[in-house]
Amino acid sequence: MNVNGQHYRTIWLKETDNKVVRIINQLTLPHSFEIRELRTVEDIRRAIKDMYVRGAGLIGATAAYGMYLATFEGDLLRSAAILKDTRPTASNLAWAVDSMLAKLAGAAAMNPAQKQETARLAAQAIADDDADYCRRIGLHGLDIIKAIAAKKGGEPVNILTHCNAGWLAFVDYGTALSPVYAAFDAGIPVHVWVDETRPRNQGASLTAWELGQHGVPHDLIPDNAGGHLMQHGMVDMVITGADRVTRAGDAANKIGTYLKAVAAKESGVPFYVALPSSTFDFTMRDGLAEIPIEERDAAEVRYISGKTLSGAIETVQLCPDSTPARNWGFDVTPARYISGLISERGICAASEQGILGLYPEQSHV
Amino acid sequence: MNVNGQHYRTIWLKETDNKVVRIINQLTLPHSFEIRELRTVEDIRRAIKDMYVRGAGLIGATAAYGMYLATFEGDLLRSAAILKDTRPTASNLAWAVDSMLAKLAGAAAMNPAQKQETARLAAQAIADDDADYCRRIGLHGLDIIKAIAAKKGGEPVNILTHCNAGWLAFVDYGTALSPVYAAFDAGIPVHVWVDETRPRNQGASLTAWELGQHGVPHDLIPDNAGGHLMQHGMVDMVITGADRVTRAGDAANKIGTYLKAVAAKESGVPFYVALPSSTFDFTMRDGLAEIPIEERDAAEVRYISGKTLSGAIETVQLCPDSTPARNWGFDVTPARYISGLISERGICAASEQGILGLYPEQSHV
Repeated sequence: MNVNGQHYRTIWLKETDNKVVRIINQLTLPHSFEIRELRTVEDIRRAIKDMYVRGAGLIGATAAYGMYLATFEGDLLRSAAILKDTRPTASNLAWAVDSMLAKLAGAAAMNPAQKQETARLAAQAIADDDADYCRRIGLHGLDIIKAIAAKKGGEPVNILTHCNAGWLAFVDYGTALSPVYAAFDAGIPVHVWVDETRPRNQGASLTAWELGQHGVPHDLIPDNAGGHLMQHGMVDMVITGADRVTRAGDAANKIGTYLKAVAAKESGVPFYVALPSSTFDFTMRDGLAEIPIEERDAAEVRYISGKTLSGAIETVQLCPDSTPARNWGFDVTPARYISGLISERGICAASEQGILGLYPEQSHV
Repeated sequence: MNVNGQHYRTIWLKETDNKVVRIINQLTLPHSFEIRELRTVEDIRRAIKDMYVRGAGLIGATAAYGMYLATFEGDLLRSAAILKDTRPTASNLAWAVDSMLAKLAGAAAMNPAQKQETARLAAQAIADDDADYCRRIGLHGLDIIKAIAAKKGGEPVNILTHCNAGWLAFVDYGTALSPVYAAFDAGIPVHVWVDETRPRNQGASLTAWELGQHGVPHDLIPDNAGGHLMQHGMVDMVITGADRVTRAGDAANKIGTYLKAVAAKESGVPFYVALPSSTFDFTMRDGLAEIPIEERDAAEVRYISGKTLSGAIETVQLCPDSTPARNWGFDVTPARYISGLISERGICAASEQGILGLYPEQSHV
């Protein structure tokens, strides 16, 4: 996607030294656009853990490049364990690391250069697939937006999204926002309600920035506003991403997604979850019981950062000095609230039958 | 209630000069505790409009004192119109101003001192009634908490609240928090989940501060977290306040309340709305269609203030420079989501029949 008119992915190998991984630093957005370089497995671990990169697909691609860097350091299994331990909820992370291990299964028989080249190509393939899958998600989702637009007679299609499942959350295109970009590029009038997505405000800082860079009309709203908008017919559809989706269609996504899904159902607003195949966890059925939910530092609730009038980045405390806080990163939206899942293979019902219709090779489990 | 061990109300006449209204400045909480003095109708108007005072009951009491100050300035009807125009959603405001006008109906026949004394006593009565009604709301709500506590065998009763409907929103005690204080003072173990309540963060800045001053166990959470907590059995009841409740039981309250009500219904968690009689609007039935919803400045979404590490109060921008935002202050929770209404007269169903059972004098409309 474009940043100030120039094409970027969220992660790539440095053109002049392919032992260096480059990422867009998402901690300084939207206030400054900064590229960071990662040279070791420890750099990768910190980039994921401290959320220089975030988002289901990008975490997976970053971990894949982490396994590539691990081929320069030695112990692949130890690196795999370290990388998997960074974030518990997103299934793409473990999937990417396991994919890399599978590709490197014969590594003991390779010389170092062969091993490194095998890993580089495997990581590159994971990143390329991520971008391509997201592009295809956009085309499938476009059909849904087109159908709504046809009923609105030229009025903009109002789409609500939570958190950031745009291109910053993946290698390119994004999931939830990929259909939005596809519709905008096709000349369909769209308008996005951007949930700010407390506590880390990925909506306010990342989704608003992405949409602004692409020129898509949007308005930032507090997370509290979506129910009111849906009650008053001001939302035509909700699209979110997901961090893990079970074979029954239960979807873990950023905390607060469930509240929007429940309100959408109450107001008859279609609620879609967009995800690449790597986000499915076919080993799980009951998302509420089985998906681990990360609890993060209370400081993310108690403090917030932003730009002062003078342009400096400052952190401010929002509550009394002694106030304790809790901070769960995700919630689970049970399948019954989800109108459909949009993957690179197409659109299906959020049910085991619907999902296995697109993924028949998973029927054996 | 107590601040650093000393008893306060949120509004009172200065002991040494009863032409001066004193308020707690709620804009500097929780970082500093500051008393402000209001001397004119214009001071009162700005205090309400700019939210030095806020909260259904306190807006009403402040407007009543505004009408008292108007007796020193002259044109009562003009002052009444100015005060009513400050905030459109809360019904207490118009109710308090109209009550004052009714008490001053014979003012033309009074000399200035009589008029001022009549107004002072009337405003005082509105403030005293507000405090007394809130105290009684606490006792009725206490019965609900006791019943839940009896089933929990010594485990704390987990109560979720949104925004601030504590004593800071009224003259004393509060509505939603009054039963919590009553339960805590009666030795019942309670724990409050405090929604931070973006965009103005009244939960993080006011409710957390109030509960901390009283010693009630609590945790601050993002507004996004409540659905997850309810799905996992971590909320025993929800209590919120209200800014206006129709005769059919539809309740306007801080934006985001509706999302919690919907989630509560999905998880079978009882959802109560606590309010004094003055918050009812018996002229309205359909809250979604009839209650005016205030749209506030987008800057409240785009910026936030807090305390820096050095102790200064600083405002920071949360989104890109060019991001537009929308900011509705309230939403309406239809009666079907509300388990019961708690007023100073008792607890009733959120239905016209239930409400008129407590307010038979309103049956004629």
